Amino acid sequence: MFLKNAWYVAAWDNELVGDRLLARRLLGTNLVFYRGENGRAVVMEDRCCHRHAPLSHGQREGNCLRCMYHGLLFDASGRCVEVPGQERISDKLRVRNFPLVERDHLLWIWMGDPALADPATIPDTHWHDTPGWQAERGGYIHYESNVNLIVDNLLDFSHLAFVHNKSIGTRKQGGVKPEVDFLDESVQVRFTTLEGAPPPFARQLSKLPDVVDRFNYYVWNIRGNYFAQDSVIGPVGEGYGTESPLAMKLHTFIALTPEDADSTHYFWSTSHNDFASDIPDVTRQLTVQVAGAFEEDRDIIEAQQKSISVSPGEPMIAIAADGTLLRVRRMLDGMLAAEQPQGAGKPAVVTITPVSVQPTVVH
Amino acid sequence: MFLKNAWYVAAWDNELVGDRLLARRLLGTNLVFYRGENGRAVVMEDRCCHRHAPLSHGQREGNCLRCMYHGLLFDASGRCVEVPGQERISDKLRVRNFPLVERDHLLWIWMGDPALADPATIPDTHWHDTPGWQAERGGYIHYESNVNLIVDNLLDFSHLAFVHNKSIGTRKQGGVKPEVDFLDESVQVRFTTLEGAPPPFARQLSKLPDVVDRFNYYVWNIRGNYFAQDSVIGPVGEGYGTESPLAMKLHTFIALTPEDADSTHYFWSTSHNDFASDIPDVTRQLTVQVAGAFEEDRDIIEAQQKSISVSPGEPMIAIAADGTLLRVRRMLDGMLAAEQPQGAGKPAVVTITPVSVQPTVVH
Amino acid sequence: MFLKNAWYVAAWDNELVGDRLLARRLLGTNLVFYRGENGRAVVMEDRCCHRHAPLSHGQREGNCLRCMYHGLLFDASGRCVEVPGQERISDKLRVRNFPLVERDHLLWIWMGDPALADPATIPDTHWHDTPGWQAERGGYIHYESNVNLIVDNLLDFSHLAFVHNKSIGTRKQGGVKPEVDFLDESVQVRFTTLEGAPPPFARQLSKLPDVVDRFNYYVWNIRGNYFAQDSVIGPVGEGYGTESPLAMKLHTFIALTPEDADSTHYFWSTSHNDFASDIPDVTRQLTVQVAGAFEEDRDIIEAQQKSISVSPGEPMIAIAADGTLLRVRRMLDGMLAAEQPQGAGKPAVVTITPVSVQPTVVH
Repeated sequence: MFLKNAWYVAAWDNELVGDRLLARRLLGTNLVFYRGENGRAVVMEDRCCHRHAPLSHGQREGNCLRCMYHGLLFDASGRCVEVPGQERISDKLRVRNFPLVERDHLLWIWMGDPALADPATIPDTHWHDTPGWQAERGGYIHYESNVNLIVDNLLDFSHLAFVHNKSIGTRKQGGVKPEVDFLDESVQVRFTTLEGAPPPFARQLSKLPDVVDRFNYYVWNIRGNYFAQDSVIGPVGEGYGTESPLAMKLHTFIALTPEDADSTHYFWSTSHNDFASDIPDVTRQLTVQVAGAFEEDRDIIEAQQKSISVSPGEPMIAIAADGTLLRVRRMLDGMLAAEQPQGAGKPAVVTITPVSVQPTVVH
Repeated sequence: MFLKNAWYVAAWDNELVGDRLLARRLLGTNLVFYRGENGRAVVMEDRCCHRHAPLSHGQREGNCLRCMYHGLLFDASGRCVEVPGQERISDKLRVRNFPLVERDHLLWIWMGDPALADPATIPDTHWHDTPGWQAERGGYIHYESNVNLIVDNLLDFSHLAFVHNKSIGTRKQGGVKPEVDFLDESVQVRFTTLEGAPPPFARQLSKLPDVVDRFNYYVWNIRGNYFAQDSVIGPVGEGYGTESPLAMKLHTFIALTPEDADSTHYFWSTSHNDFASDIPDVTRQLTVQVAGAFEEDRDIIEAQQKSISVSPGEPMIAIAADGTLLRVRRMLDGMLAAEQPQGAGKPAVVTITPVSVQPTVVH
Repeated sequence: MFLKNAWYVAAWDNELVGDRLLARRLLGTNLVFYRGENGRAVVMEDRCCHRHAPLSHGQREGNCLRCMYHGLLFDASGRCVEVPGQERISDKLRVRNFPLVERDHLLWIWMGDPALADPATIPDTHWHDTPGWQAERGGYIHYESNVNLIVDNLLDFSHLAFVHNKSIGTRKQGGVKPEVDFLDESVQVRFTTLEGAPPPFARQLSKLPDVVDRFNYYVWNIRGNYFAQDSVIGPVGEGYGTESPLAMKLHTFIALTPEDADSTHYFWSTSHNDFASDIPDVTRQLTVQVAGAFEEDRDIIEAQQKSISVSPGEPMIAIAADGTLLRVRRMLDGMLAAEQPQGAGKPAVVTITPVSVQPTVVH
């Protein structure tokens, strides 16, 4: 069961070029994406309403999409506008279409009640295009696991010390207790590691000293599954707001969109400040390092999923660090229950408050 | 559920050479085929009645088949005639055997009530061996789809304009309305395209002019799933009976035998007249072209099957062109119901009337 | 359903070297094996009790095993002894551990009631280390079949004449009737072939004459699934006890441990006397020959399993040679029933009586 009334990331903008048809399954539904001749991105169910041939085997014609089995032509709203050899076209010949918004290089889809789809609630991802910040766009990982196992991972940074001890984590992080604030439909986490060694990737790319302070401040937004993190690795004692030219400041955005019950799309980007302007391809190098760390997560999470699938229903014994993820799971359960027909009211507005605007710096 | 009281194509004759054992699953049953030393083709269940080892792992001995697990020997009727180390052989030691008839290079099997298996009802496929006609035999495609999706395809030629617009179809065919006659257990279709461009494959192989008349006359036989088509591409105005030496005349035979609910064996041949006797390997070239077109069908039909399997039970919205295939589906449903024990009468004799003997030529 | 109160072979000793973690599924449960720094082999469930990450993705630390997701550390008894960042450790944080005994180069596991795990009942496999006998250890085959189909095969040597007629069997063996004695939880079989041709592998490796006597004496032990065979191929008339230097004497040990309902681990070794001390690598050659014969079994048994799986519930018709295996299956059913909670008493002590100590020699 997936939360439907939410904006989910569906694709990167550059996945739709020319007359390409992109087939992708989201929330258990096969979809086809294309960009009309007018430049507007369109999404509809990837199944002709006539005989169920996938429309992604069809071809774009102007702003329309033609099924290449029997030639039915659909406009961008999903309405059939041509049946070869037939004059009258039934109003029933219609493919389901979904609200789709393009913003900051991402395509956002709303698969719930279209009347509730308010583009103003799409989260802020301006880092993809802001002076002073660099990023490679297009980060994508396909996960063979339920989305919630990935959420758990993002909500408990104690794994940094073990899963990532050769990339972005250090053993010292194993015992760190984060500060956590629960909001209506999101949670803010401040994970601070003072006077520790820089993680391996920072050692390699930056000129930071051998002892640093590290701040991982992030928001997890339950409705739509987004993670937005401001992280700072800087000289000891200067705090989260350090102005040191050596300080490595990163903004990481992750959006998880369920493909099905046991598989997930993982879209991501890491934007960085000019901490190393003398390294010519630092953005590429940083992206490779972060991607490598995310693969470490994927390895253990997919293994965890297999372990759960082979023995479903076995109990999990909680430890203290699980408090956050267990509470978030309960919040999600409440939101899912509220979305069901009998109890469905209007969903709360989805906002994502970047932690970077919070004045609090914690030592 | 499959119609059992029917002759189905099981194999091409040259699939049984020497002492080869051919394992093939038909109508949801594993079968083993072999040719006895006496030259007679035999088929039985591919499962030893003793411990269920597949007999296709055995070996032929004379006209018999020996299971190579514990050595039981079965004669061509499926009766066990030897149990190593045992004198008396129970009459229960018997593998199910089926009527099998070899004709015109095809092997025909009857998997229903053997008492109803009348070889006189096997359809005419003499084109495989007739002076003035050339054909490559052995055409075979394995389909990952339910048989009825392929039947639908053969019953609605409006797809020629879209699926085959680069091979055997033209866009003009998109709006053509066929003439259709329903018989007891079959349907005759006349699909005529006057004054159109020749399809790509005809352009390549023949000396036909840039504007032609095209006739696709075929019978679909529900009992046993055979398609027999006479098609003519000839100069404008000369009609189906054209004697022009340029005219391309083809006889295409297709037999669909379900493997299982979601997979199908597709046997086929295309025989042709001497429209291009100066091209040395025209039969090969034509076969390659037709095979390519059949692969276009397979691509879209297997995609359609996946689409249906992932969302079973979703409604299909009919268009005018679906009339024939929907009526044929209802005829099949009636035949299936009649075959069930409570209402089982004797099945109608299966005949396939080639459209070519019909005097009617339609312009 | 598997018999739980039994010692099963879990691995060869040399599968645990250095700090390697061995993941293996036995009786439907994922397990992880490792050897502590103290040299002791340990097995526990391959699933962290916290969030179900597989412990085989973790790392050994001393005699303990650390989960490399969130860093929990477990001692050799499965008790959690460290949770990073947490002082008090709940007693519930515990991974299931199993009795594991290392003997004669094999690791034996007991997955039933630990109170009943008596190492004195582990069968004798001293051949792996006895003067005058040579063996390659480490024989292993993974079977895609239910364990009982392999048991059936070992209990009916009439298949030697057909499955192995090019390796270790001869056609003459097809009709041989074995002598069979049923004990409490085991069966003794004496399969004797007098004055026959030596099997192909003996022809190749030994200097035996063209006519030989052959004795296959074995015990099948139901509790734990072990097969222990003494076989002799010697000059005619000298009997099982022949002292001829040409006689080929073999001790073959096979242990079958279910992986799951439809897959099985097959551990084996063949020890031999000095019948061919002049061939430098005779042990290797013999092992290759026997392994080849076991692959012949696997081919037919996996095919049989597929045949059964595709048509479950179809009847099997017994022949005279099936008497032994059918009775053993009934004995197993009785043992399984006795192990169930309501009727569970103490299981009989497991013994394996090598046939070689029996004085009876049968001609």
